[in-house]
Amino acid sequence: MTALATRLTRAWNLRHPIVSAPMAFAGGGALAAAVSRGGGLGLIGGGYGDPAWLAEQFRAAAGQPVGVGFITWSLRKSPSLLTDVLRHRPAAVMLSFGDPRPFAAEIRAAGARLLCQCQDLAHVMDAVDVGADAVVAQGTEAGGHGALRGAISFVPEAADYLRAHAPATLLLAAGGIADGRGLAAALMLGADGVLMGTRFWACAEALVGARHHQAIVATNGDGTIRTRVADIARQIPWPQGFTARIRRNAFTDRWHGREDELERNVAVEGPRYRQAFAAGDPENTGVWFGEAAGLIHSIERADALVERIASEALAALRRHEGAAHGAR
Amino acid sequence: MTALATRLTRAWNLRHPIVSAPMAFAGGGALAAAVSRGGGLGLIGGGYGDPAWLAEQFRAAAGQPVGVGFITWSLRKSPSLLTDVLRHRPAAVMLSFGDPRPFAAEIRAAGARLLCQCQDLAHVMDAVDVGADAVVAQGTEAGGHGALRGAISFVPEAADYLRAHAPATLLLAAGGIADGRGLAAALMLGADGVLMGTRFWACAEALVGARHHQAIVATNGDGTIRTRVADIARQIPWPQGFTARIRRNAFTDRWHGREDELERNVAVEGPRYRQAFAAGDPENTGVWFGEAAGLIHSIERADALVERIASEALAALRRHEGAAHGAR
Repeated sequence: MTALATRLTRAWNLRHPIVSAPMAFAGGGALAAAVSRGGGLGLIGGGYGDPAWLAEQFRAAAGQPVGVGFITWSLRKSPSLLTDVLRHRPAAVMLSFGDPRPFAAEIRAAGARLLCQCQDLAHVMDAVDVGADAVVAQGTEAGGHGALRGAISFVPEAADYLRAHAPATLLLAAGGIADGRGLAAALMLGADGVLMGTRFWACAEALVGARHHQAIVATNGDGTIRTRVADIARQIPWPQGFTARIRRNAFTDRWHGREDELERNVAVEGPRYRQAFAAGDPENTGVWFGEAAGLIHSIERADALVERIASEALAALRRHEGAAHGAR
Repeated sequence: MTALATRLTRAWNLRHPIVSAPMAFAGGGALAAAVSRGGGLGLIGGGYGDPAWLAEQFRAAAGQPVGVGFITWSLRKSPSLLTDVLRHRPAAVMLSFGDPRPFAAEIRAAGARLLCQCQDLAHVMDAVDVGADAVVAQGTEAGGHGALRGAISFVPEAADYLRAHAPATLLLAAGGIADGRGLAAALMLGADGVLMGTRFWACAEALVGARHHQAIVATNGDGTIRTRVADIARQIPWPQGFTARIRRNAFTDRWHGREDELERNVAVEGPRYRQAFAAGDPENTGVWFGEAAGLIHSIERADALVERIASEALAALRRHEGAAHGAR
């Protein structure tokens, strides 16, 4: 098969310009290794920082080059976690949701590539300031934490900024991308590749329960909501400006718009949320996927998925060659 | 120049697959005619229904095929407006923000094409039910009224739905698209063309004051907000679920998040808003543009713009032919 070559595949020696999002809890070593085996680059979800769990995930990924991602504001509370993780020699470290400055030097000194995930142009400016190897422009469509800018205008605006200020920095598009059409569109918008979360969450290798997987297959793209209620219930102090996109369900119907009441009742609702999550209940807890749910109709294997999406993108690009010549 | 041919250009006999949004107040006959003259299709903004103003705009567009767009829930209050407007023989009528059922038959009986602008998949289902000739999948990035779905996942999901249920229905992508990269991306996502508002708002032919035009050139894509405050100040009863994206400015900083207080003070704040709007003040009123502001660096002529964007899209598609063959 002819490969879809971009600056990303060449610079990072990948077969396909596809990276998996480091999803907290869902993105373990098996998923990251499968993505890398398929020709992309898998990132383990560093989440809120559990050194033993992370060591286990790196062991599960042994034999494949994988990276890791951190929630930056959370990492600041336990910076030794980064030092620990760098001993596993991750191929890349992604920082998201906070100031990357305190960590950039240590990551680069360890020989890992630095990705900075950005939710708006101001974040892109910060990423350039710390010399990120790649910027991930994440649209509001994304599952899990994010912010408000839509990918289709944010990605080309980020591309323009990088071209003017850091032309060697690579650009990945994220948010709402789950198939070859999205990858091809991202390349048109000026990205060098994509980072996908929701699509990999809906893979057999993800650490996601069967009923949550059934829920994403049954949900179309209208069926998610960007909200604070999951973080309130979990008592995780996310900084202002970031919200989590999760499935609309009984939990969000009950609490979205009643955040103050949820905070007052968190002694009851917090344990209830965590218990429902642990039990795999898809209605009474956060179910962590984004608008790309409407493009996902089955749970797949991540390694084969990477190959399929790259092939689809090639086909989309070739189909439009005819249009570009007026012959479609 | 080789043209960018799509199902839209062939079916509607356009040179370029580009339609202008029927922006209330800003999108008059001069703009619509310029877009059509450039090879696209211009739509006059029917807004909240002023028959004399609309007649004047159709006169201003005389000699070019143009269409018109209505705010559906508002049109229901004065349905004779549609009958009046159809006497001008619009090439197309776009309905947005409400149930299209009451108007579809009259539009088609008059020989006009019916476009239904949709903000989520449920709206697309309605559009198919009424036999729309084209669906516009509008992302949350859009300026002015809209809703919450991001274009990069909504457009391919709409494409899948149409392919399964109404394969002859055309699909336009809208929201956050302002250049050839966005047009090329829209084609990759499965659209047959694009509808652009903000980019045409920033054209010389738009009915937009000089200081509002200066504001968009000075604003990047982070500088807008989706909010209810403009509609509250204007006392326009928009249905729940629709908000307006406008520039972040002194007005939105003051009132966004304090909607109840604004409603209580509307006897003072309403006239103040309207006076500032009439005076061209860019700080104390709604300034109606979307996230594509970050891609707009000058006020252009709409006819030349249509040609430029089509050329840029062709160039983007051709640049990636190399990538599709592994040779980039």
